[in-house]
Amino acid sequence: MQRPLDVLGSSQDKNVIIQLKSGAKITGTLRAFDSHINLWLDEATIEEKDSSLKLGKVLVRGDNIVIISPGK
Amino acid sequence: MQRPLDVLGSSQDKNVIIQLKSGAKITGTLRAFDSHINLWLDEATIEEKDSSLKLGKVLVRGDNIVIISPGK
Amino acid sequence: MQRPLDVLGSSQDKNVIIQLKSGAKITGTLRAFDSHINLWLDEATIEEKDSSLKLGKVLVRGDNIVIISPGK
Amino acid sequence: MQRPLDVLGSSQDKNVIIQLKSGAKITGTLRAFDSHINLWLDEATIEEKDSSLKLGKVLVRGDNIVIISPGK
Amino acid sequence: MQRPLDVLGSSQDKNVIIQLKSGAKITGTLRAFDSHINLWLDEATIEEKDSSLKLGKVLVRGDNIVIISPGK
Amino acid sequence: MQRPLDVLGSSQDKNVIIQLKSGAKITGTLRAFDSHINLWLDEATIEEKDSSLKLGKVLVRGDNIVIISPGK
Amino acid sequence: MQRPLDVLGSSQDKNVIIQLKSGAKITGTLRAFDSHINLWLDEATIEEKDSSLKLGKVLVRGDNIVIISPGK
Repeated sequence: MQRPLDVLGSSQDKNVIIQLKSGAKITGTLRAFDSHINLWLDEATIEEKDSSLKLGKVLVRGDNIVIISPGK
Repeated sequence: MQRPLDVLGSSQDKNVIIQLKSGAKITGTLRAFDSHINLWLDEATIEEKDSSLKLGKVLVRGDNIVIISPGK
Repeated sequence: MQRPLDVLGSSQDKNVIIQLKSGAKITGTLRAFDSHINLWLDEATIEEKDSSLKLGKVLVRGDNIVIISPGK
Repeated sequence: MQRPLDVLGSSQDKNVIIQLKSGAKITGTLRAFDSHINLWLDEATIEEKDSSLKLGKVLVRGDNIVIISPGK
Repeated sequence: MQRPLDVLGSSQDKNVIIQLKSGAKITGTLRAFDSHINLWLDEATIEEKDSSLKLGKVLVRGDNIVIISPGK
Repeated sequence: MQRPLDVLGSSQDKNVIIQLKSGAKITGTLRAFDSHINLWLDEATIEEKDSSLKLGKVLVRGDNIVIISPGK
Repeated sequence: MQRPLDVLGSSQDKNVIIQLKSGAKITGTLRAFDSHINLWLDEATIEEKDSSLKLGKVLVRGDNIVIISPGK
């Protein structure tokens, strides 16, 4: 039986795209996650409306997240 | 005695339609779910107002979900 | 001693009307519920403002619900 | 030592008035409650702004409730 | 070592003023409280913007509360 | 290893400034706190936009708090 | 196996940038954190829209946080 968080397990050290409840999007390399869907990303960038900001290493608190998809 | 999450069990590997609290809708093939109603979908598409975006594989965090119905 | 969720127990396989926090209303036949008030409905319809949509089988995540009443 | 939910215990089978976070008010006869303050009411009516709707038997999910007072 | 809820213990059977997240204020005589800060008040009055309403006995669900102070 | 709530431990019986999610600010002397960051303050004052109100002794429910800093 | 909160462990006594759900940003030296992502910062500054305020030592309640990144 597979579990939803297996999507994250198979994305480790790969690029992911995250959509936040605020409408912002974060892309980066997934390094680690936990059961709350807290994420550690490297080389992350956040996009909000008209602006884009390089964050580098970042911790995303899981309760802000709507969806996560593996990047291409 | 049946339980509500049995709807998801019988939809595994089938198409589902998800309505989010934000008003967005996601469709895709349900691969896995857990007790928080976190979902793993394949071949997913998200529709918001006037736009539609192909997501492919996606993890949906359960607390964003209003309803889930099996697709036709 | 009765408990509030007994309202749901006595409505099984009967029509119920659900009001969501979003203001939408869902009607359908109650098949199953759990302690989070997650619901499985059959032959469900959702009404929002000016529109009505047939959903068929549906899982409603309990934290969206304001009230549930047995239909007539 | 008394506890707050004793207000509900002493209101069983009596009329209560409930104010919801949405601003709506529900009145009805209290039949049962639990520790989440989920309520089962009979002969309930909901009032929102300009409209009033007879609900009959109803389950109110506790997390929507601001205050409950015994009716007169 | 004192604990914050000791403020409530020392206010039992005395007048308290409660500010809710909605902006409304409730005053009344504190009869009982629990660890969720659910409150039972007697002779309570609620004030919202331009209106004031006598509630008498009331149960306030704790998650609506911002601050509680002993009345004068 | 230090923990974040040690900031509160070292501020006991001293002046603190609290910023709430509503935008209001509360200042006062910290008497007690718990693991939910519920606070008991003495000689507290709340400032909202254009107004300032003396509260005296007050219990602040922790889930309303954004930040707490020791006063000067 | 690494965990997301390791980002915080490796930032101890270093500069971090925090984005809050309110849109405000806080920078400061990370002294301590816990599993709720409550933070203790020293020499902290908060920026909101057009204003910047020196906070010095501060406790940030974790549920307000969107992302945390190590400063440069």
